[in-house]
Amino acid sequence: MFKVNENYLKLPGSYLFSTIGKKVSAYQAANPDKQIIRLGIGDVTQPLAPAIIEAMHKAVDEMGHAETFHGYAPDLGYEFLRSAMAKNDYQDKGCDIQADEIFISDGAKCDSGNIQEIFAADSKIAVCDPVYPVYVDTNVMAGRTGTYDAKTETWSNVIYMPCTKETNFAPVLPEETPDIIYLCFPNNPTGSTITKAQLQEWVDYANRVGAVIIYDSAYEAYISESDVPHTIYECEGARTCAIELRSFSKNAGFTGVRLGATVIPKDLKSGDVMLHSLWARRHGTKYNGAPYIVQRAGEAVYSEAGKAQLKDQVAYYMNNAKTIKQGLKDAGYNVSGGVNAPYIWLEVPKGMTSWDFFDYLLEKANVVGTPGSGFGPSGEGYFRLTAFGTYENTVAAIKRIKEM
Amino acid sequence: MFKVNENYLKLPGSYLFSTIGKKVSAYQAANPDKQIIRLGIGDVTQPLAPAIIEAMHKAVDEMGHAETFHGYAPDLGYEFLRSAMAKNDYQDKGCDIQADEIFISDGAKCDSGNIQEIFAADSKIAVCDPVYPVYVDTNVMAGRTGTYDAKTETWSNVIYMPCTKETNFAPVLPEETPDIIYLCFPNNPTGSTITKAQLQEWVDYANRVGAVIIYDSAYEAYISESDVPHTIYECEGARTCAIELRSFSKNAGFTGVRLGATVIPKDLKSGDVMLHSLWARRHGTKYNGAPYIVQRAGEAVYSEAGKAQLKDQVAYYMNNAKTIKQGLKDAGYNVSGGVNAPYIWLEVPKGMTSWDFFDYLLEKANVVGTPGSGFGPSGEGYFRLTAFGTYENTVAAIKRIKEM
Repeated sequence: MFKVNENYLKLPGSYLFSTIGKKVSAYQAANPDKQIIRLGIGDVTQPLAPAIIEAMHKAVDEMGHAETFHGYAPDLGYEFLRSAMAKNDYQDKGCDIQADEIFISDGAKCDSGNIQEIFAADSKIAVCDPVYPVYVDTNVMAGRTGTYDAKTETWSNVIYMPCTKETNFAPVLPEETPDIIYLCFPNNPTGSTITKAQLQEWVDYANRVGAVIIYDSAYEAYISESDVPHTIYECEGARTCAIELRSFSKNAGFTGVRLGATVIPKDLKSGDVMLHSLWARRHGTKYNGAPYIVQRAGEAVYSEAGKAQLKDQVAYYMNNAKTIKQGLKDAGYNVSGGVNAPYIWLEVPKGMTSWDFFDYLLEKANVVGTPGSGFGPSGEGYFRLTAFGTYENTVAAIKRIKEM
Repeated sequence: MFKVNENYLKLPGSYLFSTIGKKVSAYQAANPDKQIIRLGIGDVTQPLAPAIIEAMHKAVDEMGHAETFHGYAPDLGYEFLRSAMAKNDYQDKGCDIQADEIFISDGAKCDSGNIQEIFAADSKIAVCDPVYPVYVDTNVMAGRTGTYDAKTETWSNVIYMPCTKETNFAPVLPEETPDIIYLCFPNNPTGSTITKAQLQEWVDYANRVGAVIIYDSAYEAYISESDVPHTIYECEGARTCAIELRSFSKNAGFTGVRLGATVIPKDLKSGDVMLHSLWARRHGTKYNGAPYIVQRAGEAVYSEAGKAQLKDQVAYYMNNAKTIKQGLKDAGYNVSGGVNAPYIWLEVPKGMTSWDFFDYLLEKANVVGTPGSGFGPSGEGYFRLTAFGTYENTVAAIKRIKEM
């Protein structure tokens, strides 16, 4: 008689954004006349940039002719895209990453969920708290996380690194030594980040204790301050301890296009075994590449026209971030984030939980945000708003919040 | 100190098609003047059908305007595609499958590799031998397969079901009871299939012993005989024991477009737990949907124009299959397959191994095929050729083989 993976059954409730989606649908169904503004899920609203649209049309045409048709992609992804990334994201910034250390994928969510597979089953993970739920949940599914304590909302075999206003929203080196450390800067959900000097401390620590850092740089395009690193490979020694996850979702609006990449330097080893080889094996066995059309779209992100258009797109969202942050400040909220990231993190009013505030905001202002507690126990008492709406909706949402 | 997933290290050598790729590259580099014809990997060569190209252009345009832009897709995939599949692939054939039992993905390879995750770690799998390598390899990676015997090329905890000319290339019910049974019909690599009555025996068996059948129907579009089932849900009782994997790669040429689907009926349960819920949880947590543009391309597969164009495309490849089969027969080979599948399975000459014949064919005829032993120990002595080349190349390859 077949049996299921019991680890799946340990997961409490459904995935955060599914829960939000259901709550919003229920509210809308009960109040069909209300105009709900969604500043919750990190989905973008601006259309794809013209340079990307043009590249995609061209690629679609290629697929329609036998001479230019493309079937299965190369295992690691097309060389044209990997080279563009190696040059623009790394080498031009003085970082030693080669094109064959980059694996193209259909998105950073998949990669951040799948990367744990190449590590031992008894690996101990460390995560920032609050954190993007995928890191912990996928380790739960793999049986790495012990038992769940519903009261503290924590797993017994996970090292939580609180990131609250008391720590300036940055993690401190853990007392217990982890095997795998998930870091995401600029951070989702807090919108905060750390300096290059601070990240260097993490790289030094990981090399010292023999841990791997899984560095999620999905929001690097939003960095505005000069001492904030755009990639972990700006730090010395990162090639022997760090994997970097890259996304096209937020810098180029690819949430519905699906493209990402994982960088694994060939110097990152366990004994003689390169993690690069293990990930290559996973790619070759369980994955069949991102669509040709999408990889061409990714290439256009690095064209001169693409770069200029996307700079404007990021600026558009960051103007929203400024609007939200200033508006909330004016309304008397304590806020952080929004300077190097499209996320604004606010403290909910005293006496309310994060979910109380979610319901309150949905009902009183018809605005959807994300409860901080959905990202981990230290997120309780906080709330995330995103800058990915339209400017008009953002202004309208802030006006409603002010009038609440 | 971090440790790797040791199961990955148990895998012997690299993935079959990577090995072939490397051998062919080396030969081509050493013989730059030779015109190699590839009838090895199951990649298609015909361009996308006009109805699909048109749908993709339209979808690209939508992505370029804020009013019609699409961000994150719904967890299970867009309703327009799931409904088209439910109607065309199931309901019109009298099978009770609903749109919300279909999960859209980026391809059957990913799904066939990932599906094992929702089962217990100590599940025992049964596979046809020879078989698509992904089924076994992904279970190796998950630690389900015991130890590898290099001499027999088998894993200790796997039930192999030989499919050779002695069994008419069909598996027989195993003596030992499996938890999970992988079946693929029409079969890759043998090109053979089983009748609806034979498949009904498997469904009855699975229901009787409490096993789950993972049914890979990637090649159903190539079925030409009337008693061969197009889906396992044609069999009574399949809703309580079968998961079906569907691909767009071979029926619509989507190898470089990437689209697939997994069907999990809500009646398929372990105790109170629906496998549907577990897969939904996996989708929600580790995956972010196939691109909007690609899902629209999938929808066009089911349009009237799309259907007509793809019928011609399949006929084109099946004409190649006929050419290969007849040519090989004329050349004195024992061949099977090629009637309900785009694969021709031939016995290699006495005294040669499958890899010997691979090298022989590459060197003497500059034709690339796939060694049967790459698909499992019972594939030794056999060789796969695919009908996915162009007609011109197919004719030329057969001419060269005849002249060898």
